[in-house]
Amino acid sequence: MRRRLATPGPTEVPQRLLLAGARETIHHRSADMQRLMAQINAELPALFATEQDVYITTSSGTGAMEAAVVNCFSPGDEVLVVSNGYFGERFEALCGAFGVLAHPIRSPWGTSVDVDEVAAAWEAHPDVRGVLVVQSETSAGTLNDVEAVAALFRDSDVLVVVDAISGLISHRLLMDEWGLDVVLAASHKGFMLPPGLAFIALSERAWPRVEQSRNPSFYWSFQRLRKFFPLSSTSPAVSLLLGLQEALVMIGEEGLEAIQRRQALVADATAQGLRRLGFELVVEAPHRRGRVVTAAYTPEGIAPKDLLRTLSEDYAITMTGGQGVFAGKIVRLGHVGAVDALELCSVFAGLELALSRMGHEFEAGAGVGAVVDVAAEHEVMSR
Amino acid sequence: MRRRLATPGPTEVPQRLLLAGARETIHHRSADMQRLMAQINAELPALFATEQDVYITTSSGTGAMEAAVVNCFSPGDEVLVVSNGYFGERFEALCGAFGVLAHPIRSPWGTSVDVDEVAAAWEAHPDVRGVLVVQSETSAGTLNDVEAVAALFRDSDVLVVVDAISGLISHRLLMDEWGLDVVLAASHKGFMLPPGLAFIALSERAWPRVEQSRNPSFYWSFQRLRKFFPLSSTSPAVSLLLGLQEALVMIGEEGLEAIQRRQALVADATAQGLRRLGFELVVEAPHRRGRVVTAAYTPEGIAPKDLLRTLSEDYAITMTGGQGVFAGKIVRLGHVGAVDALELCSVFAGLELALSRMGHEFEAGAGVGAVVDVAAEHEVMSR
Repeated sequence: MRRRLATPGPTEVPQRLLLAGARETIHHRSADMQRLMAQINAELPALFATEQDVYITTSSGTGAMEAAVVNCFSPGDEVLVVSNGYFGERFEALCGAFGVLAHPIRSPWGTSVDVDEVAAAWEAHPDVRGVLVVQSETSAGTLNDVEAVAALFRDSDVLVVVDAISGLISHRLLMDEWGLDVVLAASHKGFMLPPGLAFIALSERAWPRVEQSRNPSFYWSFQRLRKFFPLSSTSPAVSLLLGLQEALVMIGEEGLEAIQRRQALVADATAQGLRRLGFELVVEAPHRRGRVVTAAYTPEGIAPKDLLRTLSEDYAITMTGGQGVFAGKIVRLGHVGAVDALELCSVFAGLELALSRMGHEFEAGAGVGAVVDVAAEHEVMSR
Repeated sequence: MRRRLATPGPTEVPQRLLLAGARETIHHRSADMQRLMAQINAELPALFATEQDVYITTSSGTGAMEAAVVNCFSPGDEVLVVSNGYFGERFEALCGAFGVLAHPIRSPWGTSVDVDEVAAAWEAHPDVRGVLVVQSETSAGTLNDVEAVAALFRDSDVLVVVDAISGLISHRLLMDEWGLDVVLAASHKGFMLPPGLAFIALSERAWPRVEQSRNPSFYWSFQRLRKFFPLSSTSPAVSLLLGLQEALVMIGEEGLEAIQRRQALVADATAQGLRRLGFELVVEAPHRRGRVVTAAYTPEGIAPKDLLRTLSEDYAITMTGGQGVFAGKIVRLGHVGAVDALELCSVFAGLELALSRMGHEFEAGAGVGAVVDVAAEHEVMSR
C-alpha cells in the first residue's frame, strides 16, 4: 500500500529529492564538496532573508536548539523562554541542562504568546541575556508572532533566538529585517528532505556573545562551524547535502511566496475539512494557526488513538497524536513540505474512510469537498 | 567521469545502499519505524560482539566521541588518552573542552601505542577514571592493540572507551570478551553508508558511571538514548536508517569474517602496490598497519598535493593528504567499506597514470600487478 506521511515532519520527500540523495557520495574535503557547498551557500541565506552565512550541522533540530543554548549563553545567564508547547518546553529543558536560568512565559498549549506578557516578563527580569521563542509550535499547531516579539528587543542587548525548525519556508520570516539573532531550521520540514541536517543562521551581533560563552562545546561550537565554513567541521551527512542542493532548486522553481501561498491554502483547507467532519480545532483563530500542522479534537465517540491506528493499519496514513498535555486528546494532521491540495484530498479520503469504518456519521465527501472548495477559493488550482 | 573515493571515509556507497536510503521516508514514532528498528537492533550488536544494546545518534563520529566524554566523565576527572594521531588528539581536545583532565600517552604518529607505556601511565596516574583509545587511527594508518590495552584494566574501575569509528567491521573487535566499556562507530566506514549516523555500545558497568556524570547533556545524553530505545530520542536520519537496514543484510550475506579477510587483502595489496611504485609506507610493520587506509610518503620529486590534484582532476579519484604533523608530507589511500581487489586495481591504474603524467619513472603495471599478485596469494579471488 502506498504510504502517506501526514505528520509535522518528517514530511513526504519528493522522489526527485530521494534520488538526488542517492547520487554517489563525495568527500567532505574535496573540490566536489567545495562546489556543492558553494551552490548551497549561495541559495540558503535567502530562505532566512539574511545576509549572514547559514551553518549546517548533522543532527536533528534539537541539536540546533542545544547548539544555540550552549553557544549563546553561559551558566548563570538569565533568559526568557516563550513556552506554549512541547518545543518551548524543550528550550526550557535545554536551558536547565546547561545551567541557563530560564524564566518561562507560559500560556496554555493551543494559545499563542501575548507580546505584552513578553514585555512584562522583561520588566520583571531586566537582566536577561536572551529571549527564546518557537515560531511554529507543532505540538499545538500554533504560530507565535516572532516579528512582534523581536521588535520589543530591537535596541537592547537581548539576543532573539528563534526556533523556526518547522516554520521556516512555510511561514514568512525575515531575519535581518526583524532583528533576529539566531534562527534555527531543519531538513525534514519545509525543506522536504529526510531528517538529519539542521541549519543555524547568526546575526553579526550574536558573535561577540558566542565568543564570551563559558559553556563547553565542540561538536556544536559555532566558532568551529565558522572556522571550517563553507565546509563542515566534521564529516557531514553527504547524501542529505546532495538532496539539499536539489531541494533548493525545487524551492527556487516554485518560489518562496508561492510556497507560502500553497502552505496557507493547505492549512485553511485542512481546517475546513476537519470541521466539516466533526472535529474541533485546537486553535480557532486563523492568524494564530500555523501552516505546518493542524491539531484537532476528534468527533465524539472517536478516540484519537483508535483513529490513528485505523489510518495507519488500513490506509497506510501516518498522522500523529498529542504530546504533553494533549497526549491522548487530539490528532495532528501535518501538511508541511511538498503537500498540495490534491495530495491533501488523498489524506482526507483516507480519513473519511477510516471514520466511516469506525461508525462516525457524517456526509460522505464533506472533508474532501472542503479541500476542493478552499482550493478553488484560493484560485491556486488554476494558476 | 566515474568518481572514485579512495579515502578513509566517507567510502563509496554501493548503489544498492544508496537506493535503499531513497525509499519512502517513515515517521520516527510509527509502527513502520518500530519494525525497522527491531530489524536493525537484532543485527547491530553482533558487529560489536556484544550482548548489550547499541544506540544510534544522528551525527558524525565526532559526535559519538563527544557523547562518550560527556556521559562517562565529569569535570575534574582524570583519564588516560592514547594519542598517536589526529583522532587521539581529538579525544584530548574533547576532554579539554569538557573539563576532563587528560593524561596523554603520546607516541609519534605512525607508531602504535606500546602497552607497557599505558601500564606505566596508569601507575603514574592511579586515579584515572577511564582510558580512551582509538583502534584504527586513520591519520597515520596505524592500528592500536585495543585488546591488550583493555586487558590491563580488566579488574579495575577504569572505563575503557574505544573509538572504533573507522576500524569496526574491518578489524576484529570483541567488546564483551575484551572488556570494552564504550565502543564508538559511524556509518561511513565499514558500514559502507554515507556519513550521518554514529553508533554507541555501552557495557553494563558503564551505566552507573553515566548516571553519576556531572557534565551537562541533552542531545548526547545516554540516559535519553536508553529511555527512548529502540526508537531515537529525537528525529533520526531516516534515510540513513533505511540504508543501514540494507547494509546489515549485505554484511550478513558476505559474513563478518569474510569481510575482514577481504579488508586484510586490500590493505596488503595496497601496501605492496605502493611500494612497487616507489612510495615509502608510514607504517612498515604489517601487524601495526590498519586495514582502513594506507599512509605513504610519495616518491622523490612527486609532491603529495600535486599528486592528489592530478588524481582528482584527471581521473576523478579522491585520495587524501596528511593531517597534523603529516600535512603536506604524505598521501593516504583509503580502502574501507565495499572495496575489493578489482576495484583497487582501478584506483591503482589511476595512480599509475597520474604518476606517469607527472614524470615519475616506474615499471608500468607494477602497482596494478601487485594488487593481482596479492589477491592471488590470498586465494580470495577463487572463492
